[in-house]
Amino acid sequence: MLAECLDAVRERAPLVHCITNYVTVNDVANILLACGGSPIMADEPDDAEEITAICGGLTINIGTLNHRTIEAMHRAGRKARELGHTLLLDPVGAGASRLRTGTAVSLMEELHFDVIRGNVSELKALALGSTTTQGVDANAADAVREENLEEMISFTKSYAASTGAIIAITGAIDLVADSCSCFVIRNGRPEMGRITGTGCQLSAMMNAYVTANPDRKLEAAAAATVLMGLSGEIGWDRMQPGDGNSTYRNRIIDAVFNMDGKTLEEGAKIERR
Amino acid sequence: MLAECLDAVRERAPLVHCITNYVTVNDVANILLACGGSPIMADEPDDAEEITAICGGLTINIGTLNHRTIEAMHRAGRKARELGHTLLLDPVGAGASRLRTGTAVSLMEELHFDVIRGNVSELKALALGSTTTQGVDANAADAVREENLEEMISFTKSYAASTGAIIAITGAIDLVADSCSCFVIRNGRPEMGRITGTGCQLSAMMNAYVTANPDRKLEAAAAATVLMGLSGEIGWDRMQPGDGNSTYRNRIIDAVFNMDGKTLEEGAKIERR
Amino acid sequence: MLAECLDAVRERAPLVHCITNYVTVNDVANILLACGGSPIMADEPDDAEEITAICGGLTINIGTLNHRTIEAMHRAGRKARELGHTLLLDPVGAGASRLRTGTAVSLMEELHFDVIRGNVSELKALALGSTTTQGVDANAADAVREENLEEMISFTKSYAASTGAIIAITGAIDLVADSCSCFVIRNGRPEMGRITGTGCQLSAMMNAYVTANPDRKLEAAAAATVLMGLSGEIGWDRMQPGDGNSTYRNRIIDAVFNMDGKTLEEGAKIERR
Repeated sequence: MLAECLDAVRERAPLVHCITNYVTVNDVANILLACGGSPIMADEPDDAEEITAICGGLTINIGTLNHRTIEAMHRAGRKARELGHTLLLDPVGAGASRLRTGTAVSLMEELHFDVIRGNVSELKALALGSTTTQGVDANAADAVREENLEEMISFTKSYAASTGAIIAITGAIDLVADSCSCFVIRNGRPEMGRITGTGCQLSAMMNAYVTANPDRKLEAAAAATVLMGLSGEIGWDRMQPGDGNSTYRNRIIDAVFNMDGKTLEEGAKIERR
Repeated sequence: MLAECLDAVRERAPLVHCITNYVTVNDVANILLACGGSPIMADEPDDAEEITAICGGLTINIGTLNHRTIEAMHRAGRKARELGHTLLLDPVGAGASRLRTGTAVSLMEELHFDVIRGNVSELKALALGSTTTQGVDANAADAVREENLEEMISFTKSYAASTGAIIAITGAIDLVADSCSCFVIRNGRPEMGRITGTGCQLSAMMNAYVTANPDRKLEAAAAATVLMGLSGEIGWDRMQPGDGNSTYRNRIIDAVFNMDGKTLEEGAKIERR
Repeated sequence: MLAECLDAVRERAPLVHCITNYVTVNDVANILLACGGSPIMADEPDDAEEITAICGGLTINIGTLNHRTIEAMHRAGRKARELGHTLLLDPVGAGASRLRTGTAVSLMEELHFDVIRGNVSELKALALGSTTTQGVDANAADAVREENLEEMISFTKSYAASTGAIIAITGAIDLVADSCSCFVIRNGRPEMGRITGTGCQLSAMMNAYVTANPDRKLEAAAAATVLMGLSGEIGWDRMQPGDGNSTYRNRIIDAVFNMDGKTLEEGAKIERR
């Protein structure tokens, strides 16, 4: 199943419009190209609708948002919805400021998202109104652990049911769920948290996966999550003495570039719950 | 001729102002430094004119444009024209939206550009009003191939004649022409298309080359094109097992950094038509 | 002393809000993570205050400023001041345009900065009103050299006295001073000037160092400067044939990632004057 999802992305080369933060945008573009998709970025309201129209998916990432780009998110989002494109929200920093939380809420009220992907603090802030988010990284107290796994799976499925979206909560353990079933994924390395933007990269790549696999969206979102985590493992194995987080960033994207279906299937640490 | 152009850039270290998209801006800055030039970026209208005034060239790249930066493009462009600086347009995504096409057209109506560099779909959209552009990458149907080479050389020369600019159309085969003659360049690797921003990088570097070689602008634009393609070949030769597009990006800029005139001359696959 | 400063950053993991230019922002985020800090970026005025409130330090870098981000700088700066956060100014391009010089001056008039870090031309432009700045790089005529070292130490201390800030002037020789004493640092490599953003990176990292070491701010600012220069030396030693400035960028951040207190102490070329 994972291999089929990967092959579909390489065959269909989905064009993904990203309204995304300028901190990690270059890596987002390169990982989309690495996985077989194609990126385009436009965040001027008078440009974003037409650019969205030629794409297959729209990723809205609210890091470094401003009032101009918020308007672009709404206008492009409506157009994407109208055209039946894959719509994915990455609520970077939700819970950390009223503007970020409010923007995420407002987008979710207006638009039906196919996928919402974030860290556990961001998703809890949106689902529960809790405000423990610390910046753009998850609060350790919120983390998905083996001890609270059942509870977190329930939370994820329940939030998927109430939003109608696939919910992807990524961290040491990743959960990707709709209202009925939840993939638990244990790929990845803790050192990925020392690189800026692995979450942003996964969001864009997940959009490419879902866009290229319209008949198995949940599986595609899970496959993208496995791909990111496994690439983190493969990239880490290639680290040389003296290498650090900047080189690690390159090696992860490189691993996505070189991934094939067989390696993805064999390296996956995934179970369905 | 190519070696002399390269040496002039290293000697004169032209300062190039880039109003350019935020997706690839870091690589644009680093490749300018790699080739011997120096970058500066300013896109606030109240800042852009003065910053342009201290430079030798201005590169206007319309990817991720917005109304503020469009005003900066016009104001900086007029100042650059007034001061006789090298003015280069990279019409990223022209043909993909009305705002992008209209901005490129409006800039070309107001300003005389020394060089216009883009992919074939963007240039056709501007020259012929065709609308086959798909995002920021060229449409395969438009590509310059051996079979349509004569026709494409004619198109490029003719568009150079009507605009008064050097026209550089880059892809599998690159064409760099004024109204009289056309360089056909066959350097490069298809894998360069799997990296974001090689076109943006070439535009900025081409500006540095033309600025440092005012008496042989066409040759300088061609030399920059050879340099980019040959660096793509040298960078690819240095790839190790497991490397992918992110490392390839670094290796290309590294190859520009280490290029010397002799290597450039010997590696060039260039003919004048 | 240097080792203690480094350890404090790794233990306290200071969260640093950066309103910084989009050219080098990704490297700024990754070097903050490499040194043990944590980055967050927000430049919308209605977002910047709240984001600043959850951080320990605020870095204001005026490269690629615009009127929106200038307002965010002022609002976030006032909030940071109110909360006693570390406030650092990097006046990129001061002296190169009226908007940049005026913004730096206006920020300094309104806010008391803990640290001001720039190249010698930028700092002279602010302190003396001289206008020799050429773009974002220092004018060679201004450089700190062994011949003018005494004079430049006096200038740095004197500007520290008049601003009440730690002044860090970085170049071939780095000076980090308050009104009483000045650290002279001779780490680094000239090739660091061929990478975009090493100054921006140092500014953000210096903020993390000062934030994590509130009782020895001057020493912390000096330690960050040694760390950057020594990482430039270590990174250079790891360069392979064919490597250039793009790979060098990665190797410097990697060296920061791998630095330990012992290596920092032993590699430091620092004296107190």
